[in-house]
Amino acid sequence: MNMYEIILKSKHGEKLSDEEIKWLVKGYVDGTIPDYQVSAWLMAVNLNSMSDEETLCLTMAMKDSGGTVDLSGVEGVTVDKHSTGGVGDKTSLIIGPIAAACGVRVPKMSGKGLGHTGGTIDKLESIPGCSTHLEFDDFIALVNRTGFSIVSQSGDLVPADKKLYALRDATATVDSIPLICSSIMSKKLAMGADCILLDVKTGSGAFMKTAEDAEKLASLMVRTGVNAGKKCMAVITDMDIPLGKAVGNTLEVIEAVEVLKGNVKGRLYDLCIELAADMIMMAGKGTKEECVKLAEEAVSSGRALEVFEKSIAGQGGDVSFTGNYDLLGKAATEYEVLSPSDGYIAGINSEEIGLVSLELGAGRRTKESAIDYTAGVILEKEYGDFVKKGDKLFTLYTSGKCDLKFIADKAAAAVTFSSSEPPHRDCVIKVIS
Amino acid sequence: MNMYEIILKSKHGEKLSDEEIKWLVKGYVDGTIPDYQVSAWLMAVNLNSMSDEETLCLTMAMKDSGGTVDLSGVEGVTVDKHSTGGVGDKTSLIIGPIAAACGVRVPKMSGKGLGHTGGTIDKLESIPGCSTHLEFDDFIALVNRTGFSIVSQSGDLVPADKKLYALRDATATVDSIPLICSSIMSKKLAMGADCILLDVKTGSGAFMKTAEDAEKLASLMVRTGVNAGKKCMAVITDMDIPLGKAVGNTLEVIEAVEVLKGNVKGRLYDLCIELAADMIMMAGKGTKEECVKLAEEAVSSGRALEVFEKSIAGQGGDVSFTGNYDLLGKAATEYEVLSPSDGYIAGINSEEIGLVSLELGAGRRTKESAIDYTAGVILEKEYGDFVKKGDKLFTLYTSGKCDLKFIADKAAAAVTFSSSEPPHRDCVIKVIS
Repeated sequence: MNMYEIILKSKHGEKLSDEEIKWLVKGYVDGTIPDYQVSAWLMAVNLNSMSDEETLCLTMAMKDSGGTVDLSGVEGVTVDKHSTGGVGDKTSLIIGPIAAACGVRVPKMSGKGLGHTGGTIDKLESIPGCSTHLEFDDFIALVNRTGFSIVSQSGDLVPADKKLYALRDATATVDSIPLICSSIMSKKLAMGADCILLDVKTGSGAFMKTAEDAEKLASLMVRTGVNAGKKCMAVITDMDIPLGKAVGNTLEVIEAVEVLKGNVKGRLYDLCIELAADMIMMAGKGTKEECVKLAEEAVSSGRALEVFEKSIAGQGGDVSFTGNYDLLGKAATEYEVLSPSDGYIAGINSEEIGLVSLELGAGRRTKESAIDYTAGVILEKEYGDFVKKGDKLFTLYTSGKCDLKFIADKAAAAVTFSSSEPPHRDCVIKVIS
Repeated sequence: MNMYEIILKSKHGEKLSDEEIKWLVKGYVDGTIPDYQVSAWLMAVNLNSMSDEETLCLTMAMKDSGGTVDLSGVEGVTVDKHSTGGVGDKTSLIIGPIAAACGVRVPKMSGKGLGHTGGTIDKLESIPGCSTHLEFDDFIALVNRTGFSIVSQSGDLVPADKKLYALRDATATVDSIPLICSSIMSKKLAMGADCILLDVKTGSGAFMKTAEDAEKLASLMVRTGVNAGKKCMAVITDMDIPLGKAVGNTLEVIEAVEVLKGNVKGRLYDLCIELAADMIMMAGKGTKEECVKLAEEAVSSGRALEVFEKSIAGQGGDVSFTGNYDLLGKAATEYEVLSPSDGYIAGINSEEIGLVSLELGAGRRTKESAIDYTAGVILEKEYGDFVKKGDKLFTLYTSGKCDLKFIADKAAAAVTFSSSEPPHRDCVIKVIS
């Protein structure tokens, strides 16, 4: 086998054999195939795509490139959840506890976010004392005790993805649907849960800008998961406007707790109930309708919040903050962004709000960047609200030095106004199972 | 400027600016842009192509990446000729002397062939004493004296092409028409001749397998040459069957001398007259019809042979071989390939004959391979000939150890037989000027 022939085949849109794909992944991880050949191949795949069979084989070969997680110590059905990421997406902190409160086991591993607003790991680590580096046995024990735990992904999971992703990131070959699928699914399969729920975001603040691409990716991931022997479903959700009111690490933790307390309704709550119900349903606890009821009761009864508190405490976190949010620390500076005009809010560009939050210090520009946990944005108005000129649109939070006037203008520019009430936007666009 | 954005643009089929292309070529040559980014870009260009403007800019940037040749010392109009390469293509050795005998100046530099049958430099070096490494002033003086000289390309011409070609060769990104054009034309432009004649081969033994692709490449090269301020034309010629009867270094030198002596007519002679006439015409010596006459007279009068002998002698070669071919050395082994059936010869697959010649030792498998100058194939029958079973089809020549029975079967399999006389094949398919 040789890499030249493999590149040539993919360049001509011909199908690679399983052996060729396995050989490629192995050779790249062990260093016998150089970066410059793999990057040419990645570009060919970007432009010519790959078949389902090739994508499944690539996913499995990547999964097998390192260690896998043995969840056999967890009692009960395990459900993993993945979001393709968006602005203000704190759902993992909410739906994990809800599902766990309904008897589902949610042992989750996440990577550090290299994005506008930090990832789930960053949100957890913004809680005083909370560690995401647990011994494996302690992680399993915590899941058995509370049903829910999120820890940092261990170093030896899917080394092929680490190496391939770094190369894709440097060669403008990230946005290929089969490559995104294999990257996500190899990690999900290595995690070893019985069921996988995929939240595929679409819109300005998401990786998939169009619903069509989101659907392609979601279907491919579900087919790949099912072919790999897992229960797998995907929900395509709207990320054209930010999810909820808070963007930024501690701000989102507070909002998540407010949802768990039952104090927040609306789009974010509805989405969390929907996704949690899907997890509960995949675990075999009833029909979708029954599972929606179970999820709602988990919140209204306070059981979901209880799971959250026990789990965070199990990871060393000081959960007294749920009674006094000031314990999470506060940003040194607050800055109000006022509306430049009258009108209905007909759009809040997620990507722009993400960039605003990055400027304020909430995210990472490079892998080495430090995060200002208290930094971020509160959306004081929502999509569809009527505002008058001078009304508060956003509050910006930061402890760093930044040009707040400039950032405020950027935030205000992310808002689209309309003279008439904009149409209702569903958060869930499609379910693929 | 950054390479990521450049890759992204080419991936999306967007046009690069002149500045971006110059920056890319400079950065790749000086080592600040890594191979893995350039190979991803090359694949994007392979699959999405490039505009004429981008191709011209790339060609010029590559040309400017190293030294250029100063031909101002040559008295008269200089004409360079390039063939995209084929099996049995010894035309440079014939048409240079013909054109020179008609007053054209033909100062030519060639690279070493990495192919089935060696390049023009290898053919010259198969002549005892003949060197292709002349001091530059001696090269110019020889051209002024005889009108014709072919030497090895100097090391500092177009370093960008050396580096890019090696990368393309390793990443299956060679066969992109704009990249082939920029590779050929950057070198031709660096050579500095006033006029450029391009012989673009098409068919099984050529790089461009279809006449359509050959025409695309030819047109693009002519446009690029003209845009760069040169007189430039291209002739698309048939390489579906080998050119002439000899394939292999000394065998082809002998055939070239036979053409110059006027002893060989047919396709090879006709093509040489056509190409030489184009060179003479480009140098302003008359109409095409007049130039054809001039070329024919240069052969029939013996003046072209005289130029050849003087030029070879000027490069240190012992030209007494033109009176006694045995002085070139003879292969240790000859092997006859007999026809397996009766019929008209309706095809002789050039690529296969090239591979046969490589197996016999006439070409290079890697840059470091040594060539057996005496190795090769003589085609005892031509396209259109009627043969009987047992008639001699080929004679194989080699001084190395090889499985002659196996090679003979390969050679015989390259021939297609037909019960009826096959149609006439024109050697010149199209002229582009």
